[in-house]
Amino acid sequence: LSTDEPAAAWLAGLAREAARPAGQAFAAANIALCKYWGKRDEALNLPVTSSLSVSLGELGTRTVVTVGEHADAIRLNGEDVPPEAGFARRASRFLDLVRPAAGIGYRVDTRNALPTGAGLASSASGFAALALALDHLYGWELDARRLSILARLGSGSASRSIEAGFVEWHAGTRPDGLDSFAEALPEQWPELRIGLLTVSAQQKAVSSREAMQRTRLTSALYPAWPAKAQADLELLRRAIRARDFELLGRTAESNALAMHATSLAAQPPVLYWLPQTIVHMHDVWGLREQGTPVHFTIDAGANLKLLFLARDAGVVAARFPGVRVVAPFA
Amino acid sequence: LSTDEPAAAWLAGLAREAARPAGQAFAAANIALCKYWGKRDEALNLPVTSSLSVSLGELGTRTVVTVGEHADAIRLNGEDVPPEAGFARRASRFLDLVRPAAGIGYRVDTRNALPTGAGLASSASGFAALALALDHLYGWELDARRLSILARLGSGSASRSIEAGFVEWHAGTRPDGLDSFAEALPEQWPELRIGLLTVSAQQKAVSSREAMQRTRLTSALYPAWPAKAQADLELLRRAIRARDFELLGRTAESNALAMHATSLAAQPPVLYWLPQTIVHMHDVWGLREQGTPVHFTIDAGANLKLLFLARDAGVVAARFPGVRVVAPFA
Repeated sequence: LSTDEPAAAWLAGLAREAARPAGQAFAAANIALCKYWGKRDEALNLPVTSSLSVSLGELGTRTVVTVGEHADAIRLNGEDVPPEAGFARRASRFLDLVRPAAGIGYRVDTRNALPTGAGLASSASGFAALALALDHLYGWELDARRLSILARLGSGSASRSIEAGFVEWHAGTRPDGLDSFAEALPEQWPELRIGLLTVSAQQKAVSSREAMQRTRLTSALYPAWPAKAQADLELLRRAIRARDFELLGRTAESNALAMHATSLAAQPPVLYWLPQTIVHMHDVWGLREQGTPVHFTIDAGANLKLLFLARDAGVVAARFPGVRVVAPFA
Repeated sequence: LSTDEPAAAWLAGLAREAARPAGQAFAAANIALCKYWGKRDEALNLPVTSSLSVSLGELGTRTVVTVGEHADAIRLNGEDVPPEAGFARRASRFLDLVRPAAGIGYRVDTRNALPTGAGLASSASGFAALALALDHLYGWELDARRLSILARLGSGSASRSIEAGFVEWHAGTRPDGLDSFAEALPEQWPELRIGLLTVSAQQKAVSSREAMQRTRLTSALYPAWPAKAQADLELLRRAIRARDFELLGRTAESNALAMHATSLAAQPPVLYWLPQTIVHMHDVWGLREQGTPVHFTIDAGANLKLLFLARDAGVVAARFPGVRVVAPFA
């Protein structure tokens, strides 16, 4: 999608003169119910499979972008990020896509309204908010599809944070990625709750980028993943249409377990779980055995996200005192 | 292999008159380095893939069998087992294969010299010892191949406990299973050590028989297992021939992780690990990072079996104070 890609003509043709002094935007974090796990193109963040997420309401990233001095200046949660830090370099590479000319810098002030260390992919809401803020700054008024493609170039899962609610990221098949974007599903589910359970606030030892790449290239179980993801995606769509919570929860949990399973078989193995992860998993299964329909999903980290319905919020809070509950549609 | 199976003519033709008052035998337990995970035939215990194990020296089962009263009487570790218990029913079904006529019972006195709750498949050494004790009782003098087939009918992994050292169980392809038997490899490896780490002595919630069946039938990742097992088997054979410990350990660990991974994706999921399992796994990886070549394998349970070399026994014992060390070839 850089200017030397003919298919990205729309991006090359976009205005590079600011329409207003500052662009501002908010993007919600999202939790994948069917995971994005494995890229078919590393540079363009093109996924092997489609994925499906639910957004996290007010938990997300708020970003303000202005045209600044010669170099980019990135502030994260009120602190300057050194330009050599991974986060700043990734942001600058993304800004290169829209930079009018070398030597022009941006000031980016970004704040994550996310519980620290809850394993919420801040890069998803972060790059989505930055794409939206740039659209606002330059007055492009891109449609959701193009915003999703632009955000995807910063971080794959950011494609799913342009819109709210249930969002499906279509893997697409084009080598240039112009059919690889996310779309919101029409369904709402006001009773749905997400419970964030923090097991560890530590930085993970293996980045999800590295883990999915290692898994795709070395795990003997990865060849079975694409069909699993495709089947789960269809089950999740059906569960959302029918408001079948048991099907939604069971499918999301199985999808997460299968994702982690594929990386256990990577060489060397990747295991994100800590002892407390296992404790919580057994706790969730115990609650289900006692009749409370609660399920979990786990991203590339040790923390669980619980899925349950509003009516069971009391039981869940009693069993998991530290849980932070989000109502994606309330 | 019952008398109505034409291919089991050799079994039907065996003497049914005792050659001595009592048959006695010992069989060592075995630890699979490439797991037996999934049956292509439930009744005959025919596996989907070949597997490879190492035996545990003096840790195993000692069994005495005599012809007794009208019904079978089973003693396990000095205690009478009620005939309706699962263990007794399984033993009696196995004894049916060689029973001269209905109404004739056996007395079986079987003792496991295995650390309680170490997750050592006592059914492997148990059915191997029973097959050997029956051979002794009747004076059949069956060869190792036939003994392995007979033991397999009691428990699949028992086929690998007829012989000692490294043993490969050939999956075979015949529907009657007469080419599905285990053979000892010629190689010895005196420096090899197995460390038994007990995390839980509790009976597991899901039997390995049930778990492998559920996984084979419902896990989206199981289709990738047979090729993984085949590849690991070849790597293990090569590691044993070359005495390449790093290759042996890495392959055995990856094989175990992949086995557990396939059942995580079963419906409902099967997770044998307890929090302490994860602690030990991270401990093993920590030791490796510090330069000690130690690997683990885990069977259908929560307990780890460490693989290391004699020279590292001190480091391993210091890191895992409860470890019980076995020298399979010493």
